[in-house]
Amino acid sequence: QTLQDSSQSLDPQQQQNAAQRILSGNYGKAVTVGGYGEVLYNQPEGDNGELDVQRLVLLVGYKFSEKVQFVTEVEFEHVEEVYIEQAFVNYNVADNINLRAGLMLVPMGIVNEFHEPTTFNGTERPAVDGSIVPSTWREIGVGVTGRFNELNLGYQAYLFNGFASVNGDKYLGGANGLRNGRQKGIQSTINTPNVSAKIDYYGVPGLRLGFAGYFGRTQAEDDVDMIDGADIAISMVGLDARYAYNRFTARGQFIYAGLSDTEDYNTLYGADLGSALQGWYLEGAYNLLPQQNKQKLFAFARYEQYDTHADTDGALVRNDAYNRNDWTLGLSYHITPGVVFKGDYQIRDNAVSGGDVTNRLNFGVGVWF
Amino acid sequence: QTLQDSSQSLDPQQQQNAAQRILSGNYGKAVTVGGYGEVLYNQPEGDNGELDVQRLVLLVGYKFSEKVQFVTEVEFEHVEEVYIEQAFVNYNVADNINLRAGLMLVPMGIVNEFHEPTTFNGTERPAVDGSIVPSTWREIGVGVTGRFNELNLGYQAYLFNGFASVNGDKYLGGANGLRNGRQKGIQSTINTPNVSAKIDYYGVPGLRLGFAGYFGRTQAEDDVDMIDGADIAISMVGLDARYAYNRFTARGQFIYAGLSDTEDYNTLYGADLGSALQGWYLEGAYNLLPQQNKQKLFAFARYEQYDTHADTDGALVRNDAYNRNDWTLGLSYHITPGVVFKGDYQIRDNAVSGGDVTNRLNFGVGVWF
Amino acid sequence: QTLQDSSQSLDPQQQQNAAQRILSGNYGKAVTVGGYGEVLYNQPEGDNGELDVQRLVLLVGYKFSEKVQFVTEVEFEHVEEVYIEQAFVNYNVADNINLRAGLMLVPMGIVNEFHEPTTFNGTERPAVDGSIVPSTWREIGVGVTGRFNELNLGYQAYLFNGFASVNGDKYLGGANGLRNGRQKGIQSTINTPNVSAKIDYYGVPGLRLGFAGYFGRTQAEDDVDMIDGADIAISMVGLDARYAYNRFTARGQFIYAGLSDTEDYNTLYGADLGSALQGWYLEGAYNLLPQQNKQKLFAFARYEQYDTHADTDGALVRNDAYNRNDWTLGLSYHITPGVVFKGDYQIRDNAVSGGDVTNRLNFGVGVWF
Repeated sequence: QTLQDSSQSLDPQQQQNAAQRILSGNYGKAVTVGGYGEVLYNQPEGDNGELDVQRLVLLVGYKFSEKVQFVTEVEFEHVEEVYIEQAFVNYNVADNINLRAGLMLVPMGIVNEFHEPTTFNGTERPAVDGSIVPSTWREIGVGVTGRFNELNLGYQAYLFNGFASVNGDKYLGGANGLRNGRQKGIQSTINTPNVSAKIDYYGVPGLRLGFAGYFGRTQAEDDVDMIDGADIAISMVGLDARYAYNRFTARGQFIYAGLSDTEDYNTLYGADLGSALQGWYLEGAYNLLPQQNKQKLFAFARYEQYDTHADTDGALVRNDAYNRNDWTLGLSYHITPGVVFKGDYQIRDNAVSGGDVTNRLNFGVGVWF
Repeated sequence: QTLQDSSQSLDPQQQQNAAQRILSGNYGKAVTVGGYGEVLYNQPEGDNGELDVQRLVLLVGYKFSEKVQFVTEVEFEHVEEVYIEQAFVNYNVADNINLRAGLMLVPMGIVNEFHEPTTFNGTERPAVDGSIVPSTWREIGVGVTGRFNELNLGYQAYLFNGFASVNGDKYLGGANGLRNGRQKGIQSTINTPNVSAKIDYYGVPGLRLGFAGYFGRTQAEDDVDMIDGADIAISMVGLDARYAYNRFTARGQFIYAGLSDTEDYNTLYGADLGSALQGWYLEGAYNLLPQQNKQKLFAFARYEQYDTHADTDGALVRNDAYNRNDWTLGLSYHITPGVVFKGDYQIRDNAVSGGDVTNRLNFGVGVWF
Repeated sequence: QTLQDSSQSLDPQQQQNAAQRILSGNYGKAVTVGGYGEVLYNQPEGDNGELDVQRLVLLVGYKFSEKVQFVTEVEFEHVEEVYIEQAFVNYNVADNINLRAGLMLVPMGIVNEFHEPTTFNGTERPAVDGSIVPSTWREIGVGVTGRFNELNLGYQAYLFNGFASVNGDKYLGGANGLRNGRQKGIQSTINTPNVSAKIDYYGVPGLRLGFAGYFGRTQAEDDVDMIDGADIAISMVGLDARYAYNRFTARGQFIYAGLSDTEDYNTLYGADLGSALQGWYLEGAYNLLPQQNKQKLFAFARYEQYDTHADTDGALVRNDAYNRNDWTLGLSYHITPGVVFKGDYQIRDNAVSGGDVTNRLNFGVGVWF
């Protein structure tokens, strides 16, 4: 008789609540606890630096049966903020078919799904994965995932809740793109579901290719949802690649989001949301240590180009300050699998003539267990 | 030599702090980690729906010895709020006698003590357990619990801190009943303890009967506590029953709270607190799957009637909008012990002539591990 | 092949994110979970009492290898506040040498490093460890620690981020000393690192002596950092001792902080920061139970003297209300190693002629596992 058998008993005389079950000691061993985190130091040129426990995440998983599992991520940001970032049930209905329901990550690009600090180079995540893909982008939904080994294909498909047109007092716009619209599963409003899907191709050794799409509309509140511009349409597509060969690794991605009805939206809310957002990056890295070492020391370079005003509708003039590019040059020193020390320098620019963004030096320590 | 022996050493030269103990690896295995959570979708007729990670709870327990245990619940509500919901020491002094101290649940009705989503039908908890019993109702206190098997009786008795008369800028009143007064162990004020007790009877197979009482006064701040109406008296009694027979289960409860001095309270604070709160519900459920299956699919119906203005004192006129009744009809599909998918429809009404409450459709996924 | 080997794979085709790793079940067993907490009852004479879940702390540690570990503390204060209180990597480079980086405790006095409720007498921590040492004092930094057994010496040395001159809308001053300046790793500003070091001497059986120093300047924001008084200099020294002999234990500490440039600071910000802070305490305790018992019942007495206006610069007159002394007399009943019930009475006074601080009775339950 297992934990779940007894504590989930229908007989009221056998019923225990959660605390009673812990006290009774009649408790399973299928709980998994893990975590990841990163402590960062950003030093912009000529200004004060910033030290921050940017995130510390606890993961808790439970295997109810061979087919049913639950996973949740509790994320603590900047020491004192908390978010449940993932919380979903995975039901392995058949070979190659998993049904999922709950709060889940939207598959778009690399980092939104793979953001553990030991998995990417650079103290900070790529800027494309903040300004174009609003990482960490997660919403409540249902989906199906799986892998067809004979085709070398993995797939994911979801119905997700969409962005809010207006989120409290925050609007979509040029400075933040779609970020402010993320509802994050917090008593989020829904009037029409959005569709998200990704295919990963594994056919070439060492290479993983991803094709992602996201289509839908933002969610407008009841009292405004019939007004023109109360919501906009979003079509986002992403292409990404990761490659590893001996001591060399490379990755890159391209994301394009086309938005409709932004002219009406901007008129209604006095916002400056572009009609297209676009970004891409390429990164190469080389392990400076012998390949058989447990420790790895990657030297890497990444170039990014991204623009939340890749296009605008109506009277809205493109703001060149939103047309950005970054070089990031640095080192990732994995002192043991799961622990990385990072250091890099970022040369940052925008398309404003004579304009510039402050360059900065970054250091960080990241763990994943 | 165990963890506790060494780390709790009196010898200053042996002393370690918590981080040092983890680093030393000199660490016990008596920690238990668990959790429960529910992700919900409420769809009122004609309005936007709401998607919410309503709660995600992590449980941590520790067994210090055969006699002494500690249990705590860390609850994350609506993704970004956090509450320690339980935190108490249980000391098993003798057979049938456990002493407890800390932050604990008040035993009243079924759901305040048994609110894990796999233990009740319906996406939302019964409304009686929110409006009359202010679930989750927990306060700091001391108590004694145990079970006399020969008498088929379980008992609990506590001294708890009471409700606050005024909680920040929130008052007790018709719309929320006593909910706003819950102090939840947050730097809570106390001038007089309250008494709580419950007896559970197990004498009939498949049946569990509960009789609960709660008696005391609200806690008034120092500067007002001599003014008439600064605090009120509360006497709450509850009767509940849970029954299971083959594929059939049923439950029901009746709660009545009589409040004194509400006229003075309402005058002092401009509030509309009733002098009586009352509610009850009855629920029947039938498992549509063969009984030997691990999976269970319950069809259920619940009728609730509850009124936070069951009576009023003085000039306060009963507000019929607070006299409510709900039908909830739905399914609970336990895909494996510990994981439930829920769907139901709620027909909601009040006693206002021609008045009505929006009906709604609810879906949810719940886990308990 | 271990967890870390597979999940940290460079091959993109093998890469899993954190949730996928939990779902895959390919998971290590090196996670350690622990915690400590205290539920307190303060009863000042003649006023309402306060009941509070003062803190509940979850500890999570992970051993990546024989040499590399990670430790974090997630602290929940007053039920609903959360702080990451520690989060650092420990790298055991050689015998007697550990490198550390992340969010760490500043070693000063006893309680800032050893604040688990079972390790100190008294329901509340010593007041010196709140008003002079701003416990829990933690900042982001890097350091080196170790122990030379042949010398009976332990050592710690760190570069830490310093206090903020101004923290949001909070200033340093007489009432709170340096407490308001703690940045706690929350997007904290840095322009100059501070130095912290401590040596512990173990040469006499049962005795542990500590000598600590902290030297640096507060961190001023970019726009004010050239103005006189925008930052101040801090030199803090501490001496502490812990002793145990049979059923008798004793401890004491002395802390002195000299601050420079406080006159300019007070002028610039309209603050009342003293130019010296000083405090000390002595405590003796005796176990009333036979020494071989697992249970221990300590009767203790502690006398504290502390003054955040030990000296002032310029026109600022010393405020005698900040010159405090406390007697604490009470019992600590350890019902099993790791669980303590506490009760004590505090006679509190200040140097104001005829002035007084309300005495109070305190009770508490504390756990550490």
